[in-house]
Amino acid sequence: MMRVDALVAQLGGELVGDGSVLVRRVATLDQAGEGDLSFLANPKYLGRLKSSAAAAVILGVRSRDALTDRPRIVVDDPYLYFARVARLFNPAPMVVPGVHPLASVASTLPASVAVDAGAVIGKDVVLGEGVSIGAGCCIGDGVQIGAGSRILPRVTIYANCLLGRDCLVHSGAVIGSDGFGFAREKTGAWVKIPQVGRVVIGDDVEIGANTTIDRGALDDTVIGNGVKIDNQIQIGHNVRIGDYTAIAGCVGIAGSTHIGARCMIGGQAGIIGHLTIADDVVVSAGTLVTKSIHQRGVYTANLPVQPHADWVRNFSHLRHLDALADRIRALEKRLEERDSS
Amino acid sequence: MMRVDALVAQLGGELVGDGSVLVRRVATLDQAGEGDLSFLANPKYLGRLKSSAAAAVILGVRSRDALTDRPRIVVDDPYLYFARVARLFNPAPMVVPGVHPLASVASTLPASVAVDAGAVIGKDVVLGEGVSIGAGCCIGDGVQIGAGSRILPRVTIYANCLLGRDCLVHSGAVIGSDGFGFAREKTGAWVKIPQVGRVVIGDDVEIGANTTIDRGALDDTVIGNGVKIDNQIQIGHNVRIGDYTAIAGCVGIAGSTHIGARCMIGGQAGIIGHLTIADDVVVSAGTLVTKSIHQRGVYTANLPVQPHADWVRNFSHLRHLDALADRIRALEKRLEERDSS
Amino acid sequence: MMRVDALVAQLGGELVGDGSVLVRRVATLDQAGEGDLSFLANPKYLGRLKSSAAAAVILGVRSRDALTDRPRIVVDDPYLYFARVARLFNPAPMVVPGVHPLASVASTLPASVAVDAGAVIGKDVVLGEGVSIGAGCCIGDGVQIGAGSRILPRVTIYANCLLGRDCLVHSGAVIGSDGFGFAREKTGAWVKIPQVGRVVIGDDVEIGANTTIDRGALDDTVIGNGVKIDNQIQIGHNVRIGDYTAIAGCVGIAGSTHIGARCMIGGQAGIIGHLTIADDVVVSAGTLVTKSIHQRGVYTANLPVQPHADWVRNFSHLRHLDALADRIRALEKRLEERDSS
Repeated sequence: MMRVDALVAQLGGELVGDGSVLVRRVATLDQAGEGDLSFLANPKYLGRLKSSAAAAVILGVRSRDALTDRPRIVVDDPYLYFARVARLFNPAPMVVPGVHPLASVASTLPASVAVDAGAVIGKDVVLGEGVSIGAGCCIGDGVQIGAGSRILPRVTIYANCLLGRDCLVHSGAVIGSDGFGFAREKTGAWVKIPQVGRVVIGDDVEIGANTTIDRGALDDTVIGNGVKIDNQIQIGHNVRIGDYTAIAGCVGIAGSTHIGARCMIGGQAGIIGHLTIADDVVVSAGTLVTKSIHQRGVYTANLPVQPHADWVRNFSHLRHLDALADRIRALEKRLEERDSS
Repeated sequence: MMRVDALVAQLGGELVGDGSVLVRRVATLDQAGEGDLSFLANPKYLGRLKSSAAAAVILGVRSRDALTDRPRIVVDDPYLYFARVARLFNPAPMVVPGVHPLASVASTLPASVAVDAGAVIGKDVVLGEGVSIGAGCCIGDGVQIGAGSRILPRVTIYANCLLGRDCLVHSGAVIGSDGFGFAREKTGAWVKIPQVGRVVIGDDVEIGANTTIDRGALDDTVIGNGVKIDNQIQIGHNVRIGDYTAIAGCVGIAGSTHIGARCMIGGQAGIIGHLTIADDVVVSAGTLVTKSIHQRGVYTANLPVQPHADWVRNFSHLRHLDALADRIRALEKRLEERDSS
Repeated sequence: MMRVDALVAQLGGELVGDGSVLVRRVATLDQAGEGDLSFLANPKYLGRLKSSAAAAVILGVRSRDALTDRPRIVVDDPYLYFARVARLFNPAPMVVPGVHPLASVASTLPASVAVDAGAVIGKDVVLGEGVSIGAGCCIGDGVQIGAGSRILPRVTIYANCLLGRDCLVHSGAVIGSDGFGFAREKTGAWVKIPQVGRVVIGDDVEIGANTTIDRGALDDTVIGNGVKIDNQIQIGHNVRIGDYTAIAGCVGIAGSTHIGARCMIGGQAGIIGHLTIADDVVVSAGTLVTKSIHQRGVYTANLPVQPHADWVRNFSHLRHLDALADRIRALEKRLEERDSS
């Protein structure tokens, strides 16, 4: 329970209305009730604001007076402010230090570290203060993890990989598996190339559930600071990702591709190998990137969904676009010839 | 071993031919031999039926007399009948109650529950009668799972998620991981929004291997009754899926999208966030849905595969479709002008 | 540390220059220094070769004299030779036999086998000599794994599946989960069809992190010898894959599809069910295959990425391609009529 004026004193913003109102939770406009603080980030939802039972609301400057009967916190970026309040009301769970008797630990760990049941920690592992290793995790020999990082249950980190401070790794993620590297014999048989690089991950990185990041073949795979990686993502060997880039679910990034800083990669997008993507590039959902992108901006390649019958009718032409273009050229030529005759 | 007439007495259908024949297994027409019951669901495979060595066959009404030398069970829907026979011959494995000494359990469980080695069960977990928790599973604090549900090895269910009765969750699935929710600071840095909703799953739901379902941000992610979800699927926060909807492998569904009942989503399809999909919608494989769909029906957006050289020739025009359309317009105008001159 | 002439004596190739130089590591041209052996596989990187500090270099015949100041190994296929040297310098880690006290083993295993902490091995499991089972693995009843295979941490192999010799399975992989097989009742409810086939995997197969391979419905799912499968791949029930086929990350292969030998399937490609793909077929990244392919060759269906505004302008026509084709036809007809009038 917290007074709205105390919240503003701590996090900033302009308080309009009764600051003594108590809030204890954040909630959507539709679900909010007594004790709930809600927010309006998109003016499109002004109607929901009016019908909301929220005790207090975070608003942008333009919506300042959209509600006059309840306390408001007026800020430049309501969604960002909401994020800060949500963090204040929902702090990360406390790490309870200690090693569970059903864990297997072959390294010396700081007393502040928590290791849950079934976790297996190899030799020469270095964990920072307050690190927590969830149940069933497998942490390979020589791994280093910075202070404050939380590895949730059932994560694998292969030998010699490095994670920075304050990272959060979700269940099922695999960091440091072998890259897909083979040479081919004349018979067609594949000769495996040992993958001896590492994965090196910066500070404040979040890695989603069942995401996989391969170790480098010879050099390292490198993930910058503040990078956010959603679920079910595949990152190939020797990929490099710049700071603050965010990657949505189901994306695949093939080997040796370098992605700049502050990029946003939409869900199910793919980027083939050996490309360079500039800083501040946005790739739309479902887009396969097959060439390097050198200019910031939004890039797209996906198809308009249609009722199946329309799709059959329209898309059958895709097999013959070149013939269609030839027919246009022929028509132009015939008209040209007439005009000149 | 079971007589065909006993089978028909139990499951229905019309028996034609000798009911005393014994069957003990279901098999495809090609593989079937003595003691095997097979089925013909698609009249296209009539040839295989004739050459099959099956002891008895399940047939549709139209194929009633396609075989006259062997006992037949004639039914409306041979595939559905086959499914019922297959279940009769292959019942789910018995749950052997008991908690393995290498499991870690912090809640009070019914005596009928099975917990295998390496499983870790948190506090305040409520399991129904006959629930089985596979080896290496991690069940978070406050999780509730309905009677008869089977959680196969190496599944993670995060804190406070709810599963109904008779669910089947395959290995590697992760239920309740954080949704991908961040607000952006002016520097480009991301501020994590705590994900405090739950995942709420109905009865008789199957969840495939390595599938991930994120918990809601503020409200819940909700999966209806009888929903079938294949492997490698990503379901974002606050998604809602209606009863009996089936989703094939590798699909991604982005946050806050609501999908109706009895939909079928093809493999590798994607649905972006904040959309509404009506009941009884079929989305074809590989289709990215970028707009809400309000009418039942089949929807498609994928490309015809071609030999690479043809693809290069045809698809190069896609970058210039607008110019092509302009040239058609110009031709029409020139002819128009001539006609009117 | 190894002399270059000793390396050539062991692995072949033509030595040019001082054979007494010592090498102990493989490295990229850019990273190589003293003691490093590098390679030039693509003549495009000749510039990097000249500036490289590598102690010795593997070269193709055409680049034989591109460097004259350092020892060279001249071979037909520098990348393949590099792979062999890399394997020589980086042998697979020794398996240290023994069963960890925190493992749970219900079968009799050869003394040469290693089973790490938290692994759970069912009844009637048959492991070949020198097999290693990583931490947290779950190996179901009746599984058989050939000699020399390494199962890395947190892999699940369901009951009765077979793996050949010298396989390598990465963390998070799931082998033998149920195929996605259901019959539909008139109400829309799904009746599960028990999946009673197995997964049968050949020798020298590598399976990537978090990849899933479903067991067959009635018959088996079959993976040939020397097949290489990357991360995050889904292989449906009753799929068959021929020898030496390689499949890149995030691919989905739907049920009952048969893929030939020596195929290469690009990342994020998809193949729908019940198709046949010939030997030596290459499918480009991101391509959805919806028809069988009977001829070897390269097949493609993906879209050119464009700046978003260009994409909007060009791709809006895709919804109306049929109308565009009609307009071309109408123009042709009008010119035809004129010519004949």
